[in-house]
Amino acid sequence: MKRHRNGEIWNFESQTPAAGAGVILGLDGGTTSTVCVCLPVAMPPAGPLPNPLPILSRAVAGCSNHNSVGETAARETLQEVMAQALSKACSSRAAVQAVCLAVSGVNHPMDQQRLLDWLRDIFPSHVKFYVENDAVAALASGTMGKLHGCVLIAGTGTIAYGFTEDGREARAAGAGPILGDWGSGYGIAAQALTAVMRAHDGRGPQTKLTKNILDILGLSSPDELIGWTYADPSWARIAALVPVVVSSAEDGDEVANRILYDSVQELADSVIAVVRRLRLCGKDGGDTFPLVMVGGVLEANKRWDIGKEVINCISKVYPGADPIRPKRDLTAAV
Amino acid sequence: MKRHRNGEIWNFESQTPAAGAGVILGLDGGTTSTVCVCLPVAMPPAGPLPNPLPILSRAVAGCSNHNSVGETAARETLQEVMAQALSKACSSRAAVQAVCLAVSGVNHPMDQQRLLDWLRDIFPSHVKFYVENDAVAALASGTMGKLHGCVLIAGTGTIAYGFTEDGREARAAGAGPILGDWGSGYGIAAQALTAVMRAHDGRGPQTKLTKNILDILGLSSPDELIGWTYADPSWARIAALVPVVVSSAEDGDEVANRILYDSVQELADSVIAVVRRLRLCGKDGGDTFPLVMVGGVLEANKRWDIGKEVINCISKVYPGADPIRPKRDLTAAV
Repeated sequence: MKRHRNGEIWNFESQTPAAGAGVILGLDGGTTSTVCVCLPVAMPPAGPLPNPLPILSRAVAGCSNHNSVGETAARETLQEVMAQALSKACSSRAAVQAVCLAVSGVNHPMDQQRLLDWLRDIFPSHVKFYVENDAVAALASGTMGKLHGCVLIAGTGTIAYGFTEDGREARAAGAGPILGDWGSGYGIAAQALTAVMRAHDGRGPQTKLTKNILDILGLSSPDELIGWTYADPSWARIAALVPVVVSSAEDGDEVANRILYDSVQELADSVIAVVRRLRLCGKDGGDTFPLVMVGGVLEANKRWDIGKEVINCISKVYPGADPIRPKRDLTAAV
Repeated sequence: MKRHRNGEIWNFESQTPAAGAGVILGLDGGTTSTVCVCLPVAMPPAGPLPNPLPILSRAVAGCSNHNSVGETAARETLQEVMAQALSKACSSRAAVQAVCLAVSGVNHPMDQQRLLDWLRDIFPSHVKFYVENDAVAALASGTMGKLHGCVLIAGTGTIAYGFTEDGREARAAGAGPILGDWGSGYGIAAQALTAVMRAHDGRGPQTKLTKNILDILGLSSPDELIGWTYADPSWARIAALVPVVVSSAEDGDEVANRILYDSVQELADSVIAVVRRLRLCGKDGGDTFPLVMVGGVLEANKRWDIGKEVINCISKVYPGADPIRPKRDLTAAV
């Protein structure tokens, strides 16, 4: 607790009892929002997790993906949401036994190491730390803690992540918008914005996306979209346009439909790549495996159901895919 | 000259004669570099410009596209490079008669207005100002000042911009990397980075781009590319990978070749859209028109010649396209 020992974020600790009951912090950090829950330590040491989990408190904040908002802002969000969860639970860092951060943007052992070093600076020395990509928590949320099968996240970003029963792992996509995550909410929205520009300057067909997107943004011409797009680097702001793309497609717009079908294929391709590399479908290709589906793009439940189309696409290649849509938010199983 | 009157940038003016000869500042602002030249006012008031132009001084700086680096950094670059050009010419703002800024990222009358207001704050009230997209200067650089025909810029960014003899204008692309400028240097490099990620996680075919890009960046695994990509938001840093894509294509790599051919088509499409909207090819489609080609992507003069392929592509649709590759840098004709 060298850093921030006297920081305002942790001021609430002076009001909490010195020796509270032991707690665990579980955090699911995405590119749009970050959720932290505080759980009591007194849970069965092995066996299935209690359902529902005895959550003491829950705190919500914005983006904690360092690739999207930068390392400083991401860490500030992480620290604030952890402090808020502890404060709401009338607990303090002295009572924390373990912290599990499952954060999007953790793509490399170095990302993991930097977060571990940072956590060690904030918490007492006895605390155990676990840092993973948020996809790992997402998978666990669908399998009640067992790391087996494949998870597909499609929210602002997208990633497919899989584990075999013997602990091998593989991932596909999850490299952010510059590196071709076209099936993500950001990817879908960026393709829609591009289609508007192409219709405007004569390179592409006319589309209902033009009127629909300009209306929702309160802009009067596609030229103004350029300034709007680059005024703020947040990925979530662009991804928030996905519902407009879906409603335009439902309204029969061919360009919007093409974007959604292409994105469905992209999302399916990332799952297929993971399943193939891990042989989750067994040697003869027919084994059943859990396919956990999470994120706003897959959960929209609109008439144009992206999640359903992705499952159809995957099932044609791997009929053993057993789709699971977790009912609770991811942090329930962290 | 309200703002920065006492700023360090303009300190040199206290050393210059109070009433120097009148000068003009011409500035070409790109996403990778910005060039400002200082010219004497004493030039023929009409008729063709002298060739070569009597340039008093020339200063170079980095990116001045506000969409890439933000408005504050872009303006700082613009101000510094103008001050440097004046200082090198032993002149000062009091001697300036006109300033012409041709800057990438000027996409809307509001962009233009903001720069005009800013210039009025920096320079004395008698100075005339012209603010345009850098494509306008690029066109003029190939036609010795006459605004007629079409220009294609493909450097870090890309834009096609055209004028008819009676002053109508049209543009295509130029909306930056989020809005689908796939033929730009940034677009080509981002597609190459994406191809590396896809080969790595099993979604795409293996490619020589993997080894070639990792080698040049000093990285050991494609996973490290994610951190590298998002560590710095500069578009120019990504675009600097274009030579690796070209050499990989020359080396027979199919993925790199596909990226370059797709980009050629994108670049040609933007010119074709402008020519069609302005009817630069005349009513029967056979008229000749100048097609000015500028920017690092088109001027590479490698065995895989992107510029030549773009011209081939355009000529199939508009045989009257008369390609011009300006010999001097753009600011020579500003």
